Amino acid sequence: MNIESIINALNQVREQKPLVVNITNYVVMNNTANGLLALGASPIMAHSQQEMAEMMSFCGALVINIGTLDSQWIPRMRFAIEQANVNHRPVILDPVGCGASALRTETAREFAQLANQLIIRANASEVIALAGEMSKSKGVDALDSSEAALDAARHLMTTYQANVVISGATDYIVTPSHTISLNNGDAMMPHVTGMGCTLSALTGAFAAVGEMSGAAAAAVLGVAGEIAAEQSQGPGSLQMHLLDALYQLNAETLAARLAMVVTP
Amino acid sequence: MNIESIINALNQVREQKPLVVNITNYVVMNNTANGLLALGASPIMAHSQQEMAEMMSFCGALVINIGTLDSQWIPRMRFAIEQANVNHRPVILDPVGCGASALRTETAREFAQLANQLIIRANASEVIALAGEMSKSKGVDALDSSEAALDAARHLMTTYQANVVISGATDYIVTPSHTISLNNGDAMMPHVTGMGCTLSALTGAFAAVGEMSGAAAAAVLGVAGEIAAEQSQGPGSLQMHLLDALYQLNAETLAARLAMVVTP
Amino acid sequence: MNIESIINALNQVREQKPLVVNITNYVVMNNTANGLLALGASPIMAHSQQEMAEMMSFCGALVINIGTLDSQWIPRMRFAIEQANVNHRPVILDPVGCGASALRTETAREFAQLANQLIIRANASEVIALAGEMSKSKGVDALDSSEAALDAARHLMTTYQANVVISGATDYIVTPSHTISLNNGDAMMPHVTGMGCTLSALTGAFAAVGEMSGAAAAAVLGVAGEIAAEQSQGPGSLQMHLLDALYQLNAETLAARLAMVVTP
Repeated sequence: MNIESIINALNQVREQKPLVVNITNYVVMNNTANGLLALGASPIMAHSQQEMAEMMSFCGALVINIGTLDSQWIPRMRFAIEQANVNHRPVILDPVGCGASALRTETAREFAQLANQLIIRANASEVIALAGEMSKSKGVDALDSSEAALDAARHLMTTYQANVVISGATDYIVTPSHTISLNNGDAMMPHVTGMGCTLSALTGAFAAVGEMSGAAAAAVLGVAGEIAAEQSQGPGSLQMHLLDALYQLNAETLAARLAMVVTP
Repeated sequence: MNIESIINALNQVREQKPLVVNITNYVVMNNTANGLLALGASPIMAHSQQEMAEMMSFCGALVINIGTLDSQWIPRMRFAIEQANVNHRPVILDPVGCGASALRTETAREFAQLANQLIIRANASEVIALAGEMSKSKGVDALDSSEAALDAARHLMTTYQANVVISGATDYIVTPSHTISLNNGDAMMPHVTGMGCTLSALTGAFAAVGEMSGAAAAAVLGVAGEIAAEQSQGPGSLQMHLLDALYQLNAETLAARLAMVVTP
Repeated sequence: MNIESIINALNQVREQKPLVVNITNYVVMNNTANGLLALGASPIMAHSQQEMAEMMSFCGALVINIGTLDSQWIPRMRFAIEQANVNHRPVILDPVGCGASALRTETAREFAQLANQLIIRANASEVIALAGEMSKSKGVDALDSSEAALDAARHLMTTYQANVVISGATDYIVTPSHTISLNNGDAMMPHVTGMGCTLSALTGAFAAVGEMSGAAAAAVLGVAGEIAAEQSQGPGSLQMHLLDALYQLNAETLAARLAMVVTP
């Protein structure tokens, strides 16, 4: 993974406009769809079991986000992952609030086990809770630093044969071959709801064009987020400028700003 | 239909503030409600079967949008259309993703058949799929040009006794007496999620004051959209400026910008 | 209640970052979560009965908003209120559309009866309908002046042992010891969907740090709203500037702008 491969992945998303199916939480459906459209992908938010087999047959990736989980959505999500497996589609799992309730922790683990081609994207508290360690999580906001979740992420990688993206002040991408750290973004970003969910959605767009590490999405969102924050007086304008920055982002800006370190 | 009748309809919406009941998808509930409020109408997003008979008795129009359809919402939508018929309320059908799954195509056709006073508002791919022809649709974004859907729209008009709005780079309004083309709007608009859904919602507000062609909503949204695009650096600011432009839109601006051609 | 106690409450929210559990309507989940984050609180939008006992054990407050009510969400809301009672958590009830359907009126009354530590936040039409009087309500927008709802609010206060916040051009806070009027805000605010829902959510954040009158949330939102309106060309920019203004609001600005009258 280097800057050229990230730029190449971005260009492919914009050329192919991959269809990304999102079974996601009610809170972020609008802004994650807008994030995917601003990036250049084609989002569809769908959850009916009656159409999921069809959708998995022609989509590029499936994003599963458990932010507003309930007993009716769990079987739909399970069925969608099974159909993604049948059709060899990548699955991005966002275990929102993992650790805040037994329901979320158990469901996230079941889904991680089920998906064949998996990227897990979560904040540090969720990664730690998913791995079965004691986290400080009580809610959906991270209370642990992303660095503190690195061992847990490696545990998840081995257990579920997954790449793991820990988002935070520093983002870490944990894969079998290397660990990537990204120091873009801005401290104001956690004051916008669903910023991590947007990262998961963008990860789906990149996975659909074959970028399975999760690094390209984190790089693009981090750079767009810091550009947006420089123009913003608060989280309201940050959300708006972020979509504009995603839409405008080009190779030069990405290369000039990206603060990425790849460790073997 | 001419510019005077469109201005008249806009004035009536602002004076009467019609109540528009929306059974719509989760993705766009917020921005379509905001679109209706910015226009001057009074939106209510409701879906419970237990209150729909009451709501149809005092509302101005019903908007049915199948963007996040499932087996629990279908009977509620069906019941709402039945109650709209009982109370002689116009129904606006937005068949989001029609053609992308059998569930969406069949449900959209059933609802189009059921509604007595119907306007269909869809993109070209959805219009073509609803009419039973082969479309390029795979998802919710249009892959066909709106002109390519004109024959399909005329077929829908006859089959369902409905007026049909095809939205796209050029919008077409197909009615028994004439075909209207509108060349407002901006190429950035499809990069904001739910722009077509907003058009369907606004169509409901105009239908509630008796403008049943669909042209006034397309005219107002097209003009407001192009004003907004001129002030915007990307889809984030476009969504914001669009609501401001709808709120500020006056007769002079509408008359100066509207690019409408009416063909008998 | 005076300006010092409001500033103190705001500081406590920002220091403690209380977790506010929201079972709210689909339309406003995104912007109310963003409102809570901009204020400094930690929102979670959840509704599953399977996790609500856990969540009530560690949250700061529960916000129940019936804006998109249905038969599946009612038992979940009931269970959440029961668990809030068990754990001595304050409940904020937002009876959206009370009076517009029997379902909403009856459900709102049942929940008001059930909650032990209750703040009711509603517009005038909803307060009047909840109290059983004849209101002009047909929808979710207020058609009565907030002053006209004062007697009804006092009736609710006695019946349900609740503090009552009537939002409108003037906000009224009705408690056993005094009545507070607030004359901040701006006439453009009702053109943004869910502004009242945001007030209810913020009321939850303040209740979580012990401010149980509802006045602090109304003061903060009113002042932030009028700052935002001064910078806005319409409801689109108002929503954005509001989140920025909530994020930036400090004691000096609050003290300089607050137009509050406390009557014994």
